[in-house]
Amino acid sequence: MTEAKGPDSSRRSERSRRAIHDAALALVGEIGYARTTIEGIASRAGVGKQTIYRWWPSKAAVLLEAFLDLAEQASDAAGPGDYEIPDTGDLEADLRLVLRSTVDEMNTPVYDAPARALAAEGVVDAAVGAQFVEKLLEPQLQLYVTRLRAAQQAGQVRPGVDPRIALELFVGPLAHRWLLRTLPLTHEYADLVVDYAVNGLAPRG
Amino acid sequence: MTEAKGPDSSRRSERSRRAIHDAALALVGEIGYARTTIEGIASRAGVGKQTIYRWWPSKAAVLLEAFLDLAEQASDAAGPGDYEIPDTGDLEADLRLVLRSTVDEMNTPVYDAPARALAAEGVVDAAVGAQFVEKLLEPQLQLYVTRLRAAQQAGQVRPGVDPRIALELFVGPLAHRWLLRTLPLTHEYADLVVDYAVNGLAPRG
Repeated sequence: MTEAKGPDSSRRSERSRRAIHDAALALVGEIGYARTTIEGIASRAGVGKQTIYRWWPSKAAVLLEAFLDLAEQASDAAGPGDYEIPDTGDLEADLRLVLRSTVDEMNTPVYDAPARALAAEGVVDAAVGAQFVEKLLEPQLQLYVTRLRAAQQAGQVRPGVDPRIALELFVGPLAHRWLLRTLPLTHEYADLVVDYAVNGLAPRG
Repeated sequence: MTEAKGPDSSRRSERSRRAIHDAALALVGEIGYARTTIEGIASRAGVGKQTIYRWWPSKAAVLLEAFLDLAEQASDAAGPGDYEIPDTGDLEADLRLVLRSTVDEMNTPVYDAPARALAAEGVVDAAVGAQFVEKLLEPQLQLYVTRLRAAQQAGQVRPGVDPRIALELFVGPLAHRWLLRTLPLTHEYADLVVDYAVNGLAPRG
């Protein structure tokens, strides 16, 4: 995306890009998506607005990339192996781990405001929503597909179950609580969602 | 809410209230929540804006009541008994019925735009979100609590399961697809969500 002409120019571009991301996330968190403008982001980042228009087609694109960048930094900080759901052979334990970590992320203020702004915009604007799903959400959901398919091969998930649908029993309830703020998002809640979805509500045996 | 002075005055008030509701829902659907104003609603409804300020404390309150009114009309049209989930003794069949009907409602254009506008505003504004949950969402969720508790007493749901959490395995996935527009909302999808949640993902027996 940057037209690098040498190490110095690359570094400068990278610094500007990071400053623009930070400004976009901060502004959206403070004043909301609707009142955040390209001009406002440029001014806060200390760059000309043409710099932003050269690199990104829209406000939504800036914010989406800023959010991807934030998620990547958090993932790098958490160390390698964060891009897949662990497979210890114990499906419930592995899902509890990932759902607890999702709960922690949803409860982190630095994510909360920009993630809400982006999700809310996607709720009303189908084009923004499609970008959000394609770039940010669906790649995360595919990690569940991989893990559930492995569990299916190991005989821990019923043969007929579609992993792409089954994963929604885990992410749907968490997103519902987070987006609509019905009740608190806790580790205990994450554990119960895993138990209910894997073992079912009906009595066994 | 109206200060009725007699039959004529009541009818006039009721007509105005309905006109204001219709104007609010139409405007929000057309131009979004942020750009909808009390003045705009008043002008479209053909009433003075003081009429609106006299009856409602905020734009969010007008829209929420308009939406409740819309839901009530649809419910009246559907006939009596719509305020509870049927109990035929077959939990899966009863849940399939209510989830299919939720899918149909989510796919109805007259609901879609105002419901999205209201939900999106609740995602970013905690006060609006709390009203949305208290007035609109939680009463619907309590219908699931009642039905799941009856199923529990009939031995069709595990004794330890908390119905208020278990219901999120049904409504969470549907809301996730609707709000984030990941994949189409169909009756087949609703049926699979019921099957997976009631019977669990793990093999039985």
